[in-house]
Amino acid sequence: MIADEIWVDVQHIRDRAPLVHNITNYVVMNTTANALLAIGASPVMAHAVEEVEEMAGIAAALVINIGTLSSHWIEAMAKAMWKASQCGIPVALDPVGAGATRLRTETARLLIGKTPPAIIRGNASEIKALGDEEARTKGVDSTHASEDSLDAARALSDRTGSVVCVSGAVDLIVQGSAIIRIANGHPLMSRVTGLGCTATALIGAFAAVNPAFLKAAAHAMAVMGIAGEIAAEKAQGPGTLQLHFIDALHGLQALDISGRLKWTEG
Amino acid sequence: MIADEIWVDVQHIRDRAPLVHNITNYVVMNTTANALLAIGASPVMAHAVEEVEEMAGIAAALVINIGTLSSHWIEAMAKAMWKASQCGIPVALDPVGAGATRLRTETARLLIGKTPPAIIRGNASEIKALGDEEARTKGVDSTHASEDSLDAARALSDRTGSVVCVSGAVDLIVQGSAIIRIANGHPLMSRVTGLGCTATALIGAFAAVNPAFLKAAAHAMAVMGIAGEIAAEKAQGPGTLQLHFIDALHGLQALDISGRLKWTEG
Amino acid sequence: MIADEIWVDVQHIRDRAPLVHNITNYVVMNTTANALLAIGASPVMAHAVEEVEEMAGIAAALVINIGTLSSHWIEAMAKAMWKASQCGIPVALDPVGAGATRLRTETARLLIGKTPPAIIRGNASEIKALGDEEARTKGVDSTHASEDSLDAARALSDRTGSVVCVSGAVDLIVQGSAIIRIANGHPLMSRVTGLGCTATALIGAFAAVNPAFLKAAAHAMAVMGIAGEIAAEKAQGPGTLQLHFIDALHGLQALDISGRLKWTEG
Repeated sequence: MIADEIWVDVQHIRDRAPLVHNITNYVVMNTTANALLAIGASPVMAHAVEEVEEMAGIAAALVINIGTLSSHWIEAMAKAMWKASQCGIPVALDPVGAGATRLRTETARLLIGKTPPAIIRGNASEIKALGDEEARTKGVDSTHASEDSLDAARALSDRTGSVVCVSGAVDLIVQGSAIIRIANGHPLMSRVTGLGCTATALIGAFAAVNPAFLKAAAHAMAVMGIAGEIAAEKAQGPGTLQLHFIDALHGLQALDISGRLKWTEG
Repeated sequence: MIADEIWVDVQHIRDRAPLVHNITNYVVMNTTANALLAIGASPVMAHAVEEVEEMAGIAAALVINIGTLSSHWIEAMAKAMWKASQCGIPVALDPVGAGATRLRTETARLLIGKTPPAIIRGNASEIKALGDEEARTKGVDSTHASEDSLDAARALSDRTGSVVCVSGAVDLIVQGSAIIRIANGHPLMSRVTGLGCTATALIGAFAAVNPAFLKAAAHAMAVMGIAGEIAAEKAQGPGTLQLHFIDALHGLQALDISGRLKWTEG
Repeated sequence: MIADEIWVDVQHIRDRAPLVHNITNYVVMNTTANALLAIGASPVMAHAVEEVEEMAGIAAALVINIGTLSSHWIEAMAKAMWKASQCGIPVALDPVGAGATRLRTETARLLIGKTPPAIIRGNASEIKALGDEEARTKGVDSTHASEDSLDAARALSDRTGSVVCVSGAVDLIVQGSAIIRIANGHPLMSRVTGLGCTATALIGAFAAVNPAFLKAAAHAMAVMGIAGEIAAEKAQGPGTLQLHFIDALHGLQALDISGRLKWTEG
């Protein structure tokens, strides 16, 4: 049933080839463009202040990733996000490195504060860096790292209205009181750069065809994990994993999803 | 006969390792550098206003690609193209996204207007965005997309004197009344990001060793398509295609060309 | 014995996952991040003037690569190197293209002059461009290219105190009167873009766990060459080589090193 819903989204992406506008970091531009093409979307990378609004205006989704920031990019990101909000285009935000430097933490907070994105996806440290303030005011101070990030994710979602996704061995996708956990994936995936960024890009593609953003984000994370498992079975290391992962996204079939999905709700 | 001419160019590239100076987009810098190395050329990426003229001055060809623009890059592109024209170095221009945003359309027009490149390569929409003005004044309004782009390509070539190449399932290479069609390639190639940009980079390498630019561009497109076919026979998807394509460029032999070439003139 | 020392460094990298801060060129950001992940380090790419000091301050090593320069990046590089020197964090510098344009030669000299890095790694032309001045004043004018670069490397090392590494068919690693030669590697490696940059990044990872920088640099070069040999045995060309190289770094075992090492001292 859930596998069927995921499969419907995949087919919609393949049929409609939604234009996904990415303002993303230099490290992953090539690999995320290839992942979007492999799943069936149509990626475009554009970051010039002069064109981001025009590009966002013709896109079906906008992906913002702060992995290699500089000041004129921040302005372009803010403009593109504002334009997307005006046009009702979903935004997926990846706050890469929030918590590691002030520039990243503050930029992520600034962008979220101006126009809250449909979906925020990060790892546990990044989400904690963005949600902790609220978590602390609630007096929550869990000893479990995962529960920590769950509290932070809920606080961040409550404050912004965004779906918040924490990726890890088990992915958490949170909005209000709703929570979905996905246990797909493979440890070798953490040895390939930019697979987190790829997840956020795929979330953009799924949000372009599915306006139920909690579901869209969870579907994207399930597809990431399942493609990663298929790839890991063929790979001899993180180098070959990267390509088999792209091949797996491209060749993904309904049975791959129904046979492998590890999804729990509530 | 034509296969022999293509093979002569490939051998010249391998023997001379021409320095190809690229000012290109972030997405494809790595993959186009690898494609140039695989065919036997010597790639260099340099975009700083302070050094592009010096670098263009020692290069055997210049490749300009507007795929991820920003304002100070446009200045560097214009300077490098002017220097190349002064030194008699061939320029291959890739107007990525012309027609999609004003910044890209206008930048492509500006660069072409200042110093017309030896060769312009784009997809049908991009070439139409640059050639249509003229096509429309001729009252041409074909119902066939390919004929549309052919008219636009001819108009653009007539106005600039450039060889114009429209890549697609069948590539068109046009200059004045001359036209070459190449039907090599594989559909899976369109699922890999940056293979259009790679085509333009290879055109630069071929133009570096063959001053008959109509031929040079067509030879490059034939080699692209043939390497893509060889790669597709070994690939399981767009991820593995990308690497087998690089391997195929590197391992290309005379028989691959003579046995696979689909070339028609006139 | 030496193989054992190399293996100890590899294990330390895998155990400690040192954070390696890279300010590097666009072409190789993805591939060097993947190489660092594959050997077991934790890479981060950050170049904004606003955050490089903060990032360098939490890193275990800093890698500076001038492969795609522009003016505001040079300022960020200088700031990060200064911060690293204040914190006692080792810096590995890659003067890509020194000798090719004035901007690159002068930037490399400027950065080295301000805060001499622990290790400088380049190819023979780059090291000659940086060391020649001294070599010439000594009246050294060898007819052998390799001896040329050895003199330049020694001159550069004497002037800066840095370990200087010249990579080639035989890598030279020099400091004062000490010299190590490593003859591992495979010719196909020169057909893959950015493997020189990858070497410098790995040197950063080894320097993060081994404060004897002459050894650290030599160990990194040995691991590069050995992983390249393993990859070349599985590859069909430079495309597949790239991935098998990453897999080989990830899967590297003590016996690979002891069985293949070609190391001579003095």
